[in-house]
Amino acid sequence: MLTMQDALLALTKYWTDRGCLMVQPFNTEVGAGTMNPATILRVLGPEPWHVAYVEPSVRPDDARYGENPNRLQTHTQFQVILKPDPGDPQEIYLASLEALGIDIHAHDIRFVEDNWASPALGAWGLGWEVWLDGLEITQFTYFQQAGGQTLDPVSVEITYGIERIIMALQGVSHFKDIEYAPGISYGEAFGQAEYEMSRYYLDDADIEANRRLFDTYAAEAERMIAERLPVPAHVYVLKCSHTFNVLDARGAISTTERAKAFARMRGLAREVSSLWTARREELGHPLGLVSRPGRDDDDAEPLLPDLPQADLPGPAPLLFEIGTEEMPPHEVTNTVAAVRGAVTAKLAATRLGHGSIDVVGTPRRIVVQVDAVEPREPDADRTVRGPRVEAAYDADGNPTKALLGFARGQNAEVEDLTTADFGGNQHVVVSVVDAGRGAVEVLSGLLAEVVTELRSEKNMRWSDPALSFTRPIRWLTALLGDTVVPVRVSALVSGRSTRVHRTATEPVVSVPSAAGYLEFLSGHGIVADPAVRRAAVVDAASALAATVGGVVDTEAEAGLVDEITNLVEEPNALLGGFDTRYLELPEQILTTVMRKHQRYLPVRAGDGALLPHFVAVANGSCDADAVRAGNEAVLRARYEDAAFFWRADLAVPLEQFKAGLSKLTFEEKLGSVAERAARIETIAADLAKGVELSSDDFAALERAAALAKFDLSSQMVVELSSLAGVMAREYAVRAGESDAVGQALFEMELPRSTADALPSSAPGAILALADRFDLLMAMFALGAKPTGSSDPFGLRRAALGVVRILRETPALSAVTVDGGLAVAAERLRAQGIDVSDSAVAAAREFVVARFAQQLRDEDVPADFVSAVLPGADAPGQAVATLSALRARVGDSSFRALVAALQRINRIVPAGTAAAYDAAVLTEPAEQRLAEAVAAVGDWSGRPVGDYAGAAAALVEPVNAFFDDILVMAEDPAVRSSRLGLLATISAHSPRTVDWAALDTALG
Amino acid sequence: MLTMQDALLALTKYWTDRGCLMVQPFNTEVGAGTMNPATILRVLGPEPWHVAYVEPSVRPDDARYGENPNRLQTHTQFQVILKPDPGDPQEIYLASLEALGIDIHAHDIRFVEDNWASPALGAWGLGWEVWLDGLEITQFTYFQQAGGQTLDPVSVEITYGIERIIMALQGVSHFKDIEYAPGISYGEAFGQAEYEMSRYYLDDADIEANRRLFDTYAAEAERMIAERLPVPAHVYVLKCSHTFNVLDARGAISTTERAKAFARMRGLAREVSSLWTARREELGHPLGLVSRPGRDDDDAEPLLPDLPQADLPGPAPLLFEIGTEEMPPHEVTNTVAAVRGAVTAKLAATRLGHGSIDVVGTPRRIVVQVDAVEPREPDADRTVRGPRVEAAYDADGNPTKALLGFARGQNAEVEDLTTADFGGNQHVVVSVVDAGRGAVEVLSGLLAEVVTELRSEKNMRWSDPALSFTRPIRWLTALLGDTVVPVRVSALVSGRSTRVHRTATEPVVSVPSAAGYLEFLSGHGIVADPAVRRAAVVDAASALAATVGGVVDTEAEAGLVDEITNLVEEPNALLGGFDTRYLELPEQILTTVMRKHQRYLPVRAGDGALLPHFVAVANGSCDADAVRAGNEAVLRARYEDAAFFWRADLAVPLEQFKAGLSKLTFEEKLGSVAERAARIETIAADLAKGVELSSDDFAALERAAALAKFDLSSQMVVELSSLAGVMAREYAVRAGESDAVGQALFEMELPRSTADALPSSAPGAILALADRFDLLMAMFALGAKPTGSSDPFGLRRAALGVVRILRETPALSAVTVDGGLAVAAERLRAQGIDVSDSAVAAAREFVVARFAQQLRDEDVPADFVSAVLPGADAPGQAVATLSALRARVGDSSFRALVAALQRINRIVPAGTAAAYDAAVLTEPAEQRLAEAVAAVGDWSGRPVGDYAGAAAALVEPVNAFFDDILVMAEDPAVRSSRLGLLATISAHSPRTVDWAALDTALG
Repeated sequence: MLTMQDALLALTKYWTDRGCLMVQPFNTEVGAGTMNPATILRVLGPEPWHVAYVEPSVRPDDARYGENPNRLQTHTQFQVILKPDPGDPQEIYLASLEALGIDIHAHDIRFVEDNWASPALGAWGLGWEVWLDGLEITQFTYFQQAGGQTLDPVSVEITYGIERIIMALQGVSHFKDIEYAPGISYGEAFGQAEYEMSRYYLDDADIEANRRLFDTYAAEAERMIAERLPVPAHVYVLKCSHTFNVLDARGAISTTERAKAFARMRGLAREVSSLWTARREELGHPLGLVSRPGRDDDDAEPLLPDLPQADLPGPAPLLFEIGTEEMPPHEVTNTVAAVRGAVTAKLAATRLGHGSIDVVGTPRRIVVQVDAVEPREPDADRTVRGPRVEAAYDADGNPTKALLGFARGQNAEVEDLTTADFGGNQHVVVSVVDAGRGAVEVLSGLLAEVVTELRSEKNMRWSDPALSFTRPIRWLTALLGDTVVPVRVSALVSGRSTRVHRTATEPVVSVPSAAGYLEFLSGHGIVADPAVRRAAVVDAASALAATVGGVVDTEAEAGLVDEITNLVEEPNALLGGFDTRYLELPEQILTTVMRKHQRYLPVRAGDGALLPHFVAVANGSCDADAVRAGNEAVLRARYEDAAFFWRADLAVPLEQFKAGLSKLTFEEKLGSVAERAARIETIAADLAKGVELSSDDFAALERAAALAKFDLSSQMVVELSSLAGVMAREYAVRAGESDAVGQALFEMELPRSTADALPSSAPGAILALADRFDLLMAMFALGAKPTGSSDPFGLRRAALGVVRILRETPALSAVTVDGGLAVAAERLRAQGIDVSDSAVAAAREFVVARFAQQLRDEDVPADFVSAVLPGADAPGQAVATLSALRARVGDSSFRALVAALQRINRIVPAGTAAAYDAAVLTEPAEQRLAEAVAAVGDWSGRPVGDYAGAAAALVEPVNAFFDDILVMAEDPAVRSSRLGLLATISAHSPRTVDWAALDTALG
Repeated sequence: MLTMQDALLALTKYWTDRGCLMVQPFNTEVGAGTMNPATILRVLGPEPWHVAYVEPSVRPDDARYGENPNRLQTHTQFQVILKPDPGDPQEIYLASLEALGIDIHAHDIRFVEDNWASPALGAWGLGWEVWLDGLEITQFTYFQQAGGQTLDPVSVEITYGIERIIMALQGVSHFKDIEYAPGISYGEAFGQAEYEMSRYYLDDADIEANRRLFDTYAAEAERMIAERLPVPAHVYVLKCSHTFNVLDARGAISTTERAKAFARMRGLAREVSSLWTARREELGHPLGLVSRPGRDDDDAEPLLPDLPQADLPGPAPLLFEIGTEEMPPHEVTNTVAAVRGAVTAKLAATRLGHGSIDVVGTPRRIVVQVDAVEPREPDADRTVRGPRVEAAYDADGNPTKALLGFARGQNAEVEDLTTADFGGNQHVVVSVVDAGRGAVEVLSGLLAEVVTELRSEKNMRWSDPALSFTRPIRWLTALLGDTVVPVRVSALVSGRSTRVHRTATEPVVSVPSAAGYLEFLSGHGIVADPAVRRAAVVDAASALAATVGGVVDTEAEAGLVDEITNLVEEPNALLGGFDTRYLELPEQILTTVMRKHQRYLPVRAGDGALLPHFVAVANGSCDADAVRAGNEAVLRARYEDAAFFWRADLAVPLEQFKAGLSKLTFEEKLGSVAERAARIETIAADLAKGVELSSDDFAALERAAALAKFDLSSQMVVELSSLAGVMAREYAVRAGESDAVGQALFEMELPRSTADALPSSAPGAILALADRFDLLMAMFALGAKPTGSSDPFGLRRAALGVVRILRETPALSAVTVDGGLAVAAERLRAQGIDVSDSAVAAAREFVVARFAQQLRDEDVPADFVSAVLPGADAPGQAVATLSALRARVGDSSFRALVAALQRINRIVPAGTAAAYDAAVLTEPAEQRLAEAVAAVGDWSGRPVGDYAGAAAALVEPVNAFFDDILVMAEDPAVRSSRLGLLATISAHSPRTVDWAALDTALG
C-alpha cells in the first residue's frame, strides 16, 4: 500500500519520465493548482509546456477544524499540464493510475462529463471527472480559454485529488487516518495546522486587516501591469484572490463587495494574461513553438492510403466509425441522429446506390453502417447549353468563333452539336456524359465532410486544429467490404483498426471487414447499439433488485437510465448496499445523492419504500467485489457528509438560515438571495390579493413567504442544490412550522422540469409564480434573456412553469402574466433596479412564446395557437378558449360568425371608436344590425364558447348590412356611426381571440 | 548527467527511503528552508521529526535581473531535518551525494567549520559548510537553539544549495544554463520570472504599500499569538520577514527601522516558538517522544566490556583515541593541548607508573599515546589517626568503646594499634595498606573523565545528552597493549575499532594493538601528527609551486598553513591555475578570495608578484584532475564575481558610496555606518589639533576623513569585508583622489591583527586612532564590553591597535588615550547617546589593561609594568619611562632616591597639599631639604630618565630630614609645613611612575 508521500513521488516520477517538467508548489497561497503560473500563464501562447507539480490548495471556505472527514482548508492537488495535447492523454493518464498501484483492469474507471469554468480567471474547458468505482479522483480538462484568451494550442489539464485517492487506496474514512509516511498519519503530521488555520479562516482573521490587504494587493497588481511585469502582477492577483477567500470564509463579503471584487480580479487576470502573452512574444518564445500537425509541419502529414485501382466487384457493406473520447451522454444520442441525417443526405446527393443506413453509438464511437453500397455511381447524361443559334453561325451558316470556342471547351466536334429551346430561345447544345465515380472515391470525400461538420452543443478544440466537437475525435475506421476507405480530416486518417476497452489486452484491434461489425464489437465486449445497451441496463437492474426483493422503477428513472446507457460501452450492473441507518434521512437526500452524484439506480420495496440498496452500472468487466466495495464506500462517505449536514442544519433556527441568505449572491446586479426572497414575499402578497384564499391558506402563504428560500443557506442545499424546497419542507416542519407552510415552501420550487409535478396548494402555487415572475422580470430587466444555446438562469423553464401553473391551477385563474410581471417590475424598481417598459414587454413576449410553443408541442394547429394568443396572458382561459374554438370546427354557423367578424375587422380602420349615434342610422339594414348588436351585448370579457351561440344572431344582420349599406357614406356623421357600429361588434367580441387567425382553421 | 529536477527527485527519494517525511515548500515566501515551519517549529520540543523538502528560497536582496551567474532572487534549497541526530548524519549525508551521482571517492569532500546563527529567529547552531572540491554545496548544522529555546533533542539540519551543486555537476557557469529538465534550461523555464521578480524587488515594489503590509502582518501575528494559534501566527511572521526583505532590497529601510523591525520580528518569533512548544504539549505530543539513550531507556544501555580478570603481564603502551566529527582547525590544536594536560595531570594523581605521554590530533581524532604503562599501581601505606590516647584507654588501661570502634572500623586488632603525635597530642593510629588498582581500572575511569571534561570555545550538544564539545564525539578507541580499556561516557563506549577515511573501502577498522598506532593510521592514509602534516603541506606546496617557477611564502602564510594542516587528515596538495586576466584585479582581492574563502595558498614569482596559480590541499586520495578542475571552477566563479563587483564599483562615484553608508547599520543603538563615519571624521579633526602636520598631510587627512569608510558600501567590500580599506585606496585613487588620501584610507583600517602593520602616515594613523576611539567608546557606552569568550566587535583588537599606534608613532606623542576617548565620548553625546563617566573610565581601563598585557607579553617584569602604568595614557612615553627605569637597575643612587620617595609617600597622607610655609621651617635639616627641593625643581611633567640624575641631590637631605625632624610636630602650622614640604617632593617627581611598584624591581 502506498503512503501519501509515496503516491506523490510515484506520480512525479511517472510524469517526469514522460517529459514533464517538475516545478514546485507556488510560494503564495493558491486555491488550486490551476492558479499556479505554471498552469494559468503557461497555457497561454504558442510555446510547448509539459509540467507536473504538487499543489497544496488552500480553500478557506472548506475549513472545518479538521473535523469533517473529507474537507480540508488545504488539500493536495497533483497537477499536470500537457501542451500540446499529445493525442492520447487519457491512455497516458490511465497508466499513471497503475503507477499508483491501481489495477485498472479490476476497477471501474470512467470519464464522466464535467466541464470546468472559472469566470474569475476568464477561463473554461471541457472534460471529465474521472471516476474510480464511482469516486471522483481526477478532473481532466481540455483547457479552451484562459484570461479571456482562446488557447491555441489547447492544453490538457489533469488534476488529481490526492487525499481522496489515497483514502480510497488505503481504505480509510477520515483524512486524518491517511498514512502519510510510514508510521505517520496525516492527522499526526498536519492535524494541528488544519485546526489552527481553520480557526484563522473561520473565526479569527481580522476582517479590516484583510480588506486592507486586498486593496493593497490589487493596487500592486495594477502597478505591475502598468510596469509590464506580468509575473509579479500575477503574484498579487493570487494574493488578492486568497485574501478574498479569507474574507468570504469569515462571512465578511457583502453582495456588492463580491461583485466588485470579482470584477476587479477578473479584470486584473485578463490584463496579466494578455501582458504575459505579449511578453513571451517579445522574449521570442524561449521554449519554442508547438509544431501543429496539418499546419506548420506539412512534411509530417500522415499518409493517406491511395484510392484502390479498381472498383469493388459488387455491392458491399460500408462501415464508418468515428472514434472519440467519452462524449457526454446526451451528445451520444444527438450525434447518432446528426450523423444519420448527414450520411443519409450526403449519400442522397450522390448517384451511389446503397441499401439501408444504420447509425448507432456509444460514448466512444459513432458507428455508421450502410448496406449494399454499389461499387460505382452510374454515368449520367447532361445537356450543356452553348451560344444562341443566331450567334453560333454567321450569315453563311458557318460556325462562329463563339461556337468553335464552345465546342472546344466541351471537347466536342461541331457536327455533334444540336439545338434546344431555352425559354423561347434556340441555343446550341451538346450532350455530355458525367462519368460515375467509384464508391471509394465518393465515400472518401463524403465521410470526411461528415466528420468535419460534426458539432455539439458545446464544442471544443484539441490537438487537431481543424476539428471542433464535444470531445476529441481520435480515430476513424472506414471499410467498404474489406477495403479501407481513405478518409482524411486534418491530421486524422482512416484505417482498418478500431479501439476497444482501454483495459483490454489489445486495446487497438484490426477490423477484418465491414460486415458484421456490431458482432465484432460485441466480441470485444462493446455493445454499440444504445437500444440494446439500454435494455441490458434495465434487465440487469431489475434482476439485481429482485435478488433483494426490490424493484427498480426504470420508468420513473428513465432519464437516468438513458444517461447510464450512454456512460458505458458495456453495461455491467452491480448491486450495492448501504447502512440502513441512513434510511432515517429524508428519502430525497438519499436518492438525490444516488442519482445526481453517482448515477446509481435506487432500489425500492413493492410499496415504493427505499431499500438500502442501489444498482451501479460499471463499464466492462471488472472485479465485481472491488468495484462494489468502492462504490459503497463512496456512497457511505457521501451519506456521512449528508448526515453531517442534516444534523448540523437541524441545530440551526430558521431565522438564522434566513439571515444567511444575505451572504449568498443571487446575481451581481440584483443583489443577494435575501433581496430576491424579499421581492418574492411581496410579489406573492400582491398576487394573493386577487385570489380567494381560505384563512388557513392565507396564513400558510404569509408564513411561507416570510421564510422563502431560507434553505438555500443550509449546508445541505449548499451541497446539494437540487434539494432546495425539499429541505425547506423538512427543516421547516421539524422547526415547528405547520405542514401547510412546509408544503408551500416545497411547492414553491415546483415544477423543476417539464415533467415535474405542479404545486397542489394555492400558497405553493402563488409562491412558485412569485418566484418565477421575479426571476424572469429581473433577468429581462438586465437584458439577460436566453440565447439559442445558453440559458444559465433557466428562464425557459421558469416561463414554462408560469404557463403550466396558470393553465392548471383553476384557483389562480385571476392571475395573469402581465399582472405578475408588473408587480415583479415594481418590486425591482423599488430596489433601485432600472426596469424598462420594453423589458416588461419582452418578458411577457417570452412567456407567451413558451405558451405557444407548448401548445404546438401538444399538436395544436398553428392557426388555433395564433387565434388564442391574445388571451395568452391568462393561459388557463386561453386553453378554455382553445377548446371552445376547436369544438366549433365544422360548425358552419360559427364559421359564418367568424367570417363576419373578419369582414368587419378588415373594413374598420384601426382605432375606430366602438360607438355610434343610433339616430343617424336610418336605413333598415343598419337599424336591424344596431338592434342585433344591442341584443347580443358585450362579450369582450367573456368566454368564447357561450359567445358562439349568442352571437350567431349577428351573422344575418351583418351580412344584410354589408349587402345593403355603403359604409363609407358621404355624410361624415353617418359614416362615423356606421363604422362605429361595426367596431362595436368587434369590441364586444371576446378579446382573447384573434379572429383573423381562424381563417382556415375551422375547415 | 542528472538534470536539476532529477537531482531534486533523487534527493527526495534518498531521504524518504531513509525515513524522512516529505513535505511541500511553504506556501508563503520564505528566505530559506529553515523558516518553513517544518524546520523552525518542528525542531522545538521532544517529538521526533525526520523531514525532507524542497524550498524555493526568496532573497530579494540577491535579485540581479538574472544577470549574475550565481545569484538569484529565488534559489532552490533542499532541506533535511533529522531529529534526533541519528548518530551518523555525516555518513548518511555523504551517501546522499552518491545518490546525486557524485563519486565521493574521486572528489575532495570536506566539512569546513561554519557556524550558523539567525538572531532574528533567536536561533543558532554549529556545523560546517560541506565542500566539494572547494565548492560550498551544503550547510550542515547541529541546531542548538531556536526561538530562544535550547533544543532537546538536537536536530541535524542539512541544506543543499541545489543550483550550485547542479552547476558543478553539469559544468555550467551560469545558472541559466543549468539543464533543468531534459532539453529545457533553467533560463528558458524561469528566466522571465527571475527578471521580473528582480524588477519588483529592486525597482518597482511600492514602498509605502509594503510598509503597510509589514504592519498589518505583524499585527495579525500578534493577534494570533494572543489567540494561542502558533501556526497562523508563524505564517504572518514569515510574511513580515519577506516584506521586510522587499523593503530592504528597495533600499527603504533606515537604521532605526531596521532595528525596530528586527526587534519586532524576533519578539514574535520567540512568542510563536514558546506557544508552539506549549501547544504540542497540550496536544500530547502527537508524534510521540524521542527516546534518549542513557536517559529514558536504560535497558538499552550499550554494554561495557568487563574489566579484565587479571593484570597485564608487564608494562604496555596505552592508546586512547577520541573520535569526532570535523573539529574547527584551531580546536584541534587547543584540544590536543588540553587532552595532553588532562591526561598528564590525571595520571599524576594516580600511582600508576608510565612513560612518556604523547598527544597528537587531526580534525577527526585526538590520539593519546602513553608509553610503558605499568600493569598495576603499587600498594601504598597510610597512617590512619584514631582517638586521642587519653580517650582510647580508660583508667585501667583497657580500650574504651571509642578505641574498639576505631579498630573495628579500620579492620584492625587492638594490638596492631600504635600511637603518634599530632600537633602535640598523642593519638592512637593504625597503619593501613592502600592496594594499588589494575591499570585498566585506573584508566577506565580516568579516560572517561578526560572525555567528559572536554570543552571548546563554543560547545554544542548532539545526540549524546551528557556530552558537550565543539563537535560530536562519535567513537572512543582505548587499548592497553592489545586489551580494550572499557571507557564509558554516557551512551558512548570504547572499543578496539577506529574510523579511517569515510570514503575508504572499509571506513571502520579494528586496531590490533596500542603499539605502533600512528604507523597503523598512516597505513590507512591518516597523518595523525600535526607537525608531520604541516611539514607535508609546506613541502608539497613548495614543490608544486616550483613546477611553475614560483614559490609559496609559507612563512607569510603561516596561519593559513596551520589552518590547512588541521582541515585534513591526509594532505594531498594540488596545483591549480586561473586565467591571467584576473591578475588585472588588485592583488589583495585575489589573495583574499584564495585565503579566506578557499584556503588556497597563493603562488608568487621570485619578485613577489602573484602568479596565476594556487595550491589547494585536498584530504586523502582523490581524482586529482577532477578535484583540480573543481577547485579551478570555484575560483573562476569567485573571481568572475569579484571582477563583476570591481567593474560595477568603479562606475560608482565616491560620494554615492558615501551616501550608501546611511543604509548600513553599524549597531542598532549607535545608528548607521554613516553616523559612525561622521564621528570618526570629527574625532580625527580633534586629534589632529594636537599633532604637527604638514599642510599636505593636513589636506590628505581632511579629505580622507570626509571619505572615511566609504568602501563599506561597495559591492566588493559587502562581499569581502576583509578588503575594507584595501578597496578604499583602490577606488579612491582611481576616482582621482591623491595617493596620500588613498593611503590614509587604507591605513585607517590598520592594524587588522596583532601581527599586522601599523599606519605609516600621520593621516592614516590619526584616522586609525579615531576609528578605534569611536569604536571603544561607543561600545563601552552601551556597556558592551567583551566577555571572556566573546568579543564580537573586536574591542580587544581595537584597544591593542590604539596602544600599538601610540607606542610606535612618535609624531602622535601628544595624543593620549584619555584625550581620544574624551573626544569620542563627546561626539557620541552630541549624537544623543548617553555616555557615562564610568563608561569612559572603563574604556580607559580596558585600553590600559591591553597595554599592560602587551608589556607582560614582552616579558617586562610585573613591577616595571605596574610602575609605568600611571603613564599608560601615553603609551609611547610610558615605554620611554620603562626604558629609563630599566636602565637604572642596579643603580644604588637611584635606588636610594626611590626608597626616599617611597618613604615620603608612606608618611604623607593622601591629599596633602604640595605647599609649605618656609618661614615656620626653622630646623636646619628641614631648611636644607627645602633648599634642595627648590634647587631640583618640578619634574612632574618631565621624563624620568633625567629626573634620576637631578633628583639624586634630594636623597641625603631627605634622609637627614627623617633622622632629625619629628614630622608630626605639635604645632599645627609646623606639622603642616613639614608634610607640605614632603608632599612637594612627591608632587615634583614624574607623574608617570608608580614609585611604590619599584620596591624590589631595581634589585
